Amino acid sequence: MRKLIPFFLALVFNSALAQAQSLSQSLENARMKQQPASNAPRTAIKPVLVIHGGAGTILKKNMSPEKERAYMEALKAALEKGYSILKNGGSSLDAVEAAVNVMEDDPLFNAGKGAVFTHEGKNELDASIMNGRTLAAGAVAGVTTIRNPITAARAVMEKSSHVMMTGRGAEEFAKQQGLTIVDPSYFYTEDRWQGLQRVKKQDSMKTELDHGNKPTSGLRQPENRDSKYGTVGAVALDAQGNLAAATSTGGMTNKRFGRVGDSPIIGAGTYADNNTCAVSCTGWGEYFILLVMAKTVSDMMEFGHFSLEKATNEMVMKRLGALGGDGGLIAVDKDGHIAMPFNTEGMYRGYIDKDGKVTIKIYKD
Amino acid sequence: MRKLIPFFLALVFNSALAQAQSLSQSLENARMKQQPASNAPRTAIKPVLVIHGGAGTILKKNMSPEKERAYMEALKAALEKGYSILKNGGSSLDAVEAAVNVMEDDPLFNAGKGAVFTHEGKNELDASIMNGRTLAAGAVAGVTTIRNPITAARAVMEKSSHVMMTGRGAEEFAKQQGLTIVDPSYFYTEDRWQGLQRVKKQDSMKTELDHGNKPTSGLRQPENRDSKYGTVGAVALDAQGNLAAATSTGGMTNKRFGRVGDSPIIGAGTYADNNTCAVSCTGWGEYFILLVMAKTVSDMMEFGHFSLEKATNEMVMKRLGALGGDGGLIAVDKDGHIAMPFNTEGMYRGYIDKDGKVTIKIYKD
Repeated sequence: MRKLIPFFLALVFNSALAQAQSLSQSLENARMKQQPASNAPRTAIKPVLVIHGGAGTILKKNMSPEKERAYMEALKAALEKGYSILKNGGSSLDAVEAAVNVMEDDPLFNAGKGAVFTHEGKNELDASIMNGRTLAAGAVAGVTTIRNPITAARAVMEKSSHVMMTGRGAEEFAKQQGLTIVDPSYFYTEDRWQGLQRVKKQDSMKTELDHGNKPTSGLRQPENRDSKYGTVGAVALDAQGNLAAATSTGGMTNKRFGRVGDSPIIGAGTYADNNTCAVSCTGWGEYFILLVMAKTVSDMMEFGHFSLEKATNEMVMKRLGALGGDGGLIAVDKDGHIAMPFNTEGMYRGYIDKDGKVTIKIYKD
Repeated sequence: MRKLIPFFLALVFNSALAQAQSLSQSLENARMKQQPASNAPRTAIKPVLVIHGGAGTILKKNMSPEKERAYMEALKAALEKGYSILKNGGSSLDAVEAAVNVMEDDPLFNAGKGAVFTHEGKNELDASIMNGRTLAAGAVAGVTTIRNPITAARAVMEKSSHVMMTGRGAEEFAKQQGLTIVDPSYFYTEDRWQGLQRVKKQDSMKTELDHGNKPTSGLRQPENRDSKYGTVGAVALDAQGNLAAATSTGGMTNKRFGRVGDSPIIGAGTYADNNTCAVSCTGWGEYFILLVMAKTVSDMMEFGHFSLEKATNEMVMKRLGALGGDGGLIAVDKDGHIAMPFNTEGMYRGYIDKDGKVTIKIYKD
């Protein structure tokens, strides 16, 4: 009987909220019906946070010491922000959102402020987030006025009956939800603007290479700042044993035709399931979509009983490359194991493990 | 040596095409490197085609004999069109596109002509297609001027370096590719317009029910024509043993905020892999996205060694319902086995099996 009280309370509470019930709440109810909340104290779990700031042709020889330090510090700031939430018993969902917010606000990364430009000279942002406890998820694609797309993705997840919203409709929803709306010029950075001009020039000069047998694209370009791709993301395990994943991006420099990559696609760029793992991807989005990268890692663990390490290696180091794609991902499993494989020259990445140890890396080991 | 000739020819051919190389061609090259084409005669495979025209509250008592006959005939026409291609040695890709085209052009189905209306009174169409041989895929979302969205999805797959294009950008691309562009008024049908008015009225009256604990949504409404959802799709196995899947939809009546469902999401509404199966989904899209429905069926087969029947039943009859979602899917595996599970009252569906036998159904068995 005692165990049923929170269940009935939840029903009453949800009935009161019924008029505004979101998909997230429906999932919560579905979950409660199957596993009514227990009052039993849980074993304390040591939280883990992993982040990335994009994978690509990141070579030490092309990086100035100042720039390297700036990236290391930015990654550290994002890790510390997210981990402070986890350390204080906060949720993995809050932690991944907070960590991604820090990177969205930092012009060093291709997400939020600092996003790359489309062919038409605009900044069109994509993001997605997923709650591994309930399987609730939210995503926005092609938005131009929302300061923090990951926060909009979370609002879609928690305040609407939808999972994915696009373009102006998504912007209208974010505005209604009281999120910070900015003029599109907020996203302008001189660096990215020059990047667009360079890529446009290179694309017209090197079309053959860029679309050739061995595609070179931005990822294989010699300068870091010329990377066509880039994404930020975070995955976390909290003290309650709940997993969450978040990914945010400006997409691909010079993208056209309303192109959407893997970042806002649940299953491709982002997935989280308490039964397996949480995953956030970065790289050549098209290949991540075809492979349904994040969910396949989870499925390898669930149905093939692969370890996190084996599953992520199989996907990133074997299957991705075999198709001709490149990039990387970060992942944490339900036991706190961490994986960060990539098949590019480098990936901005870092984690705080179960023992609270901070590790930040840019290049290959 | 003889075996290498087609390989070298392909390289030369692709080199000539390099300037315009699409992702689809890159995937073809990647595949050739791993498994050079063989001249060895293949065992003749008997082709299979399966289609659906949407799942929902489809009850015999609400269906007039005329309407029932119209649906049966429309499904038959789509099956015959697709199967005639397969029978003549054509590809599964051509077959699924052709079958979906027939349903897109038929106002009975919520795809192409006959699409439902958004909250703003527009028709916004989504579609995706996938080639199980190469894993190439294409998708369009939120398009309003492309007569056959599945054909646009195929053009994205075969003529661009992207997988997913949205909105006006996708329309611009389709126009450049010479696809049939129509005035948005082409998609207007009186039936769907009245459907929007009814749903708007019902939504304002029954918000509590629609968003309550036991969501009723369009799928559970008593009249067929009031279904909020609906999708068309096709999956096929051709005589070369290649699988393909295609899905096209007008989405959800009264949808807002640029909502995108599962139909244009590779992995959710559509997936095909020659190693496992081809899947096309219909139903409450949000749940299909969270479950990454189509790819999970494939992964259960690949990593868990489930049969097609076991995998599709587990996903549709157990997991989908457990989360509170509903709908169905059609699938064919590499050996020609067919599955068509749904947890709604009915699903417009049909197939032509290995023996050429035609079966068309609407209600539960």
